[in-house]
Amino acid sequence: MTRTVLVIGIGPGNPEQVTVQAIAAMNRADVIFVPDKGERKQELSRVRYEICDRYLDSTRRRIVDYRVPTRAEVSEAAGYETTVADWHASIADVYSGLLNDSLQEGCCGAFLVWGDPGLYDSALRILHRLRDADRAAFDLEVIPGITSVQALAAAHQIPLADIGNPVLLTTGRRLAEQGTLPAESVVVMLDGQQAYKGVDGAAEIFWGAYLGTEDEIIVAGPLADVAAEIDRKRTKARQRHGWIMDTYLIRARSAGDSGDENH
Amino acid sequence: MTRTVLVIGIGPGNPEQVTVQAIAAMNRADVIFVPDKGERKQELSRVRYEICDRYLDSTRRRIVDYRVPTRAEVSEAAGYETTVADWHASIADVYSGLLNDSLQEGCCGAFLVWGDPGLYDSALRILHRLRDADRAAFDLEVIPGITSVQALAAAHQIPLADIGNPVLLTTGRRLAEQGTLPAESVVVMLDGQQAYKGVDGAAEIFWGAYLGTEDEIIVAGPLADVAAEIDRKRTKARQRHGWIMDTYLIRARSAGDSGDENH
Repeated sequence: MTRTVLVIGIGPGNPEQVTVQAIAAMNRADVIFVPDKGERKQELSRVRYEICDRYLDSTRRRIVDYRVPTRAEVSEAAGYETTVADWHASIADVYSGLLNDSLQEGCCGAFLVWGDPGLYDSALRILHRLRDADRAAFDLEVIPGITSVQALAAAHQIPLADIGNPVLLTTGRRLAEQGTLPAESVVVMLDGQQAYKGVDGAAEIFWGAYLGTEDEIIVAGPLADVAAEIDRKRTKARQRHGWIMDTYLIRARSAGDSGDENH
Repeated sequence: MTRTVLVIGIGPGNPEQVTVQAIAAMNRADVIFVPDKGERKQELSRVRYEICDRYLDSTRRRIVDYRVPTRAEVSEAAGYETTVADWHASIADVYSGLLNDSLQEGCCGAFLVWGDPGLYDSALRILHRLRDADRAAFDLEVIPGITSVQALAAAHQIPLADIGNPVLLTTGRRLAEQGTLPAESVVVMLDGQQAYKGVDGAAEIFWGAYLGTEDEIIVAGPLADVAAEIDRKRTKARQRHGWIMDTYLIRARSAGDSGDENH
């Protein structure tokens, strides 16, 4: 009579970018846990509900809202790692409550995760932590999802890497710490601080927000030429929607580099 | 009366890991181009046909087989870049023939790509090359797909990155050239030479083949402990199937590292 927890990647925001496997998994769940991240991100919550409405083949399934704790601002005293660890600890308390109170033995509960559960999402880490600490017992299944990285490449119709070369997936925080670009192509996620503005040297950028959705905005070009345009569009869109999810590919490029390599 | 070319990511091999968007795109195509990579990879071709049979809602659509040129072995004289460039040139000739002979004006043709068109696939690069050289005229649309990177993380139920840290996506060839692991987590694709065998120092590996399919095999653990097991299973599976597609996450780890970081 073990509980089963499904962690389902639902893609970057377009209900069409959900897989057949994710739909089947959602329909196996007795309970679907939907986070409530506060009013400002209501539209994100709306897309989750839209996905449920569209793909769940019965209304028998229970949708359970839960409040997601807000991460504290990173202070000099606490540092990034401690701040995230504290935040994860409070999410773990919430998950523990959900699993032990809202999921009966033998039942199946699902967490819907933006993008893919393996890339910059905390659900798996927190579930492992609960299980390792014997705070909840469950079988786990993970369903992959389209990430904004794929949606970015598709929107710009580009390969992410130059031929045979690597791609570094990193965060805005890490890029801001580095300042200069490494040799490879870099895809930046979770960039609340627009770290591309601090990049030294010639670079080209392929930027996108609300990727894959009808609100999608993309901008591409030499960083020096398009940084202001990205800034302007980003600020305007963020005001209009109340939130923004954006990502970009950036790479060092001297002016003489062949245009062919852009493809 | 422009032609439209769709480049559709169909995921790493499990028909369930196709998105709703990819299915809709396949059904918009008048012609679907299916590569024939020779007998040894027949099973791959079979999965492509299975996806077509399962999701195409009419038999009106034409499936056009085409022979994919084989890449020459990389020689010291030619080097990797030249060998790949020559190979892409011969694929471009094949694509040009397909688009100009098999796709009428105003019609829509689709290339189905394993995984995602943006990650280590040549279709986009080759299509851009044809268009830039005025060898074919078409509108292009790209549909993202689940990559084996997501399927790997899902199979092992792990996040790819440590908290807030980067992930490097690279090739077996590049890892073999480097020998030592960089600081970040590394996902290795296109590794025909089992480059993990040459990695120096303590590391942990999360390996998988035929990810997401019923033939999926996964192995995880300290590299020194599981390298022989991976080698054995890889060789056996490759003999049985006639081909193998595998990928892995590898990262430097000292013996004292916290197990918590595995999640």
